[in-house]
Amino acid sequence: MHSDERSAQAPISESDLVEIIKQRVNGGGAVPDGEVGVGDDAAVLRFDADHIVLTADAMVDGVHFLSDSMTWHDIGWKCIVSNQSDIAAMGAQPEHAVLTLAIPATTRVGDLEGILSGVIGALDRYGGKLVGGDTVSSDRIIISVSMTGRLLNEEKPLKRDTARPGHLVAVTGPLGGSAGGLMAMKEATQGKHQINADDEAQLLNAHFRPNPRVDLAGALVEFGAECAMDVSDGLLLDLERICVASGVDAVVDAARVPIEPALQRAYPEVATELALTGGEDYELVYAADAETIADVNSAQHSGEKAQFGIVGKIIPRQRTDAKVTVLDEAGREIEFDAKGWDHFAG
Amino acid sequence: MHSDERSAQAPISESDLVEIIKQRVNGGGAVPDGEVGVGDDAAVLRFDADHIVLTADAMVDGVHFLSDSMTWHDIGWKCIVSNQSDIAAMGAQPEHAVLTLAIPATTRVGDLEGILSGVIGALDRYGGKLVGGDTVSSDRIIISVSMTGRLLNEEKPLKRDTARPGHLVAVTGPLGGSAGGLMAMKEATQGKHQINADDEAQLLNAHFRPNPRVDLAGALVEFGAECAMDVSDGLLLDLERICVASGVDAVVDAARVPIEPALQRAYPEVATELALTGGEDYELVYAADAETIADVNSAQHSGEKAQFGIVGKIIPRQRTDAKVTVLDEAGREIEFDAKGWDHFAG
Repeated sequence: MHSDERSAQAPISESDLVEIIKQRVNGGGAVPDGEVGVGDDAAVLRFDADHIVLTADAMVDGVHFLSDSMTWHDIGWKCIVSNQSDIAAMGAQPEHAVLTLAIPATTRVGDLEGILSGVIGALDRYGGKLVGGDTVSSDRIIISVSMTGRLLNEEKPLKRDTARPGHLVAVTGPLGGSAGGLMAMKEATQGKHQINADDEAQLLNAHFRPNPRVDLAGALVEFGAECAMDVSDGLLLDLERICVASGVDAVVDAARVPIEPALQRAYPEVATELALTGGEDYELVYAADAETIADVNSAQHSGEKAQFGIVGKIIPRQRTDAKVTVLDEAGREIEFDAKGWDHFAG
Repeated sequence: MHSDERSAQAPISESDLVEIIKQRVNGGGAVPDGEVGVGDDAAVLRFDADHIVLTADAMVDGVHFLSDSMTWHDIGWKCIVSNQSDIAAMGAQPEHAVLTLAIPATTRVGDLEGILSGVIGALDRYGGKLVGGDTVSSDRIIISVSMTGRLLNEEKPLKRDTARPGHLVAVTGPLGGSAGGLMAMKEATQGKHQINADDEAQLLNAHFRPNPRVDLAGALVEFGAECAMDVSDGLLLDLERICVASGVDAVVDAARVPIEPALQRAYPEVATELALTGGEDYELVYAADAETIADVNSAQHSGEKAQFGIVGKIIPRQRTDAKVTVLDEAGREIEFDAKGWDHFAG
């Protein structure tokens, strides 16, 4: 079947699908000399480094996104961004992506082109090139991406097990926007539009089109941070993972956590909780000394922002299991029902 | 939860799952200096080469395997092998694997350990190291693997678009065993055990535990082959893909196609058809001159086997679309209903 005969409404065959992806990805034979692009058994790519960063992340319809309340473009975007965020959290830049699409046989050509436009849009924006993948038939849509990355400093990956007592804990930007967007979407679905329209738009944008901090991975590495991860499942849960890996505990001052301004305005009563526990903001959380944090902040903020994003500190491990303690402004411990989002517990 | 408290029958949480994989993969802190293993945002691995080979392949319960008629070990094995086969078909050796498991929340710890034992078994046998992945919740099991590989000769990947008129077409081993195993399994399920027990065991083994030809990728590259792919969807369909990519046609002599001996004995009336159209044998099909084929054969067969596996030849493209013509012993064209397995058409 030639592409001009293919209707956007038509169901798709595996060979059509490969052809669409080849056209979108390889362009007009633009594969560099010595490389092999989409359409062979595997891709062959230039990669002249001593190390490779490799990650995989998958999203399932009904678990990580709802295909009936999200555009195909945004679904494709988010799946790439979550991988770019993992690459950034290692102190690396995205290089190559392979995409596995598990889709119902009834998926229309136009839907697939929507997914691809989101995939390629995020790659164009934050780095990386789609070089291959696989398509399989499935009841529900599952998008699985694997990406390679190149370390900005081959001697200095950003790891989880390098937090030390005395480090401060910082985040690279305001949190809770994605969780606020989910709340706004649910209310809108119920016919409630009680919040300011600009705030609603900002929160929905944070939820549907998050931005990975690929731009700050370089500053973290350059200014000597050694411990970072991305906030994908919620600050408290992800910080606990750092504590588990590093053999330390952490204390968080709830009042110091930067909150997405639109979230603070729209839902002030739950804003702090969502900033502490909401997932998928894709900011980075890192442990470092005050000087490193000030340097990283100077790379993104002008003026008096040296202490931006400092949310707490690392302390020695108190008991067997790692613990992240959250304190209110009076220094009293706050308990949460859920520290974050566990996809299997939900 | 500590691992000794975990029952093989218990349902699994995401953090348990990561812990099980870490224990199986990282061993006792055996990650080499400068690398980062399972449990961080991404893996960091030594890869000091100018090019990387990158592939992805997924398997869906009910489409590519049936979890109620296959062990978890074999499911894990097959998913790795299909990727190793793609790597071999590029003239490369497997290096790293990332595994994405989409599994129901009710999946038991013992089942997961079965999948992992198959995954790690195939990696130990044919090369590659499990370095990371992701786990997501899903109605049905989908196993998605991405692998990196290292070219045996960085100047000479084996490609699909390099078949030329005058080349002969050869396969690296007998075909049809996997399709014969599927037939034997269906008959056994219906209570029929009409074929010889040894043949049945061999065919089931070919279907459930196929072997990728990682061992022959080196001979193909060394002796000057430039065009190869693996037989994953059936010889005729995969050879057609070579013809499409290379702008040529092919002619296959059905009588010369090497048939799995157990298939020939067990199902003689359909053996040739299954050898031509059955998928998942994971032999390599390649186009090269007679001397190259003789050299490749000398690397695996002793004695008078110079012409082993030659099944046909490449000819100039006759019309607009690529065509693979199949001839019987009298030189008459044979038509098939299906050239092979298209997962979306089935």
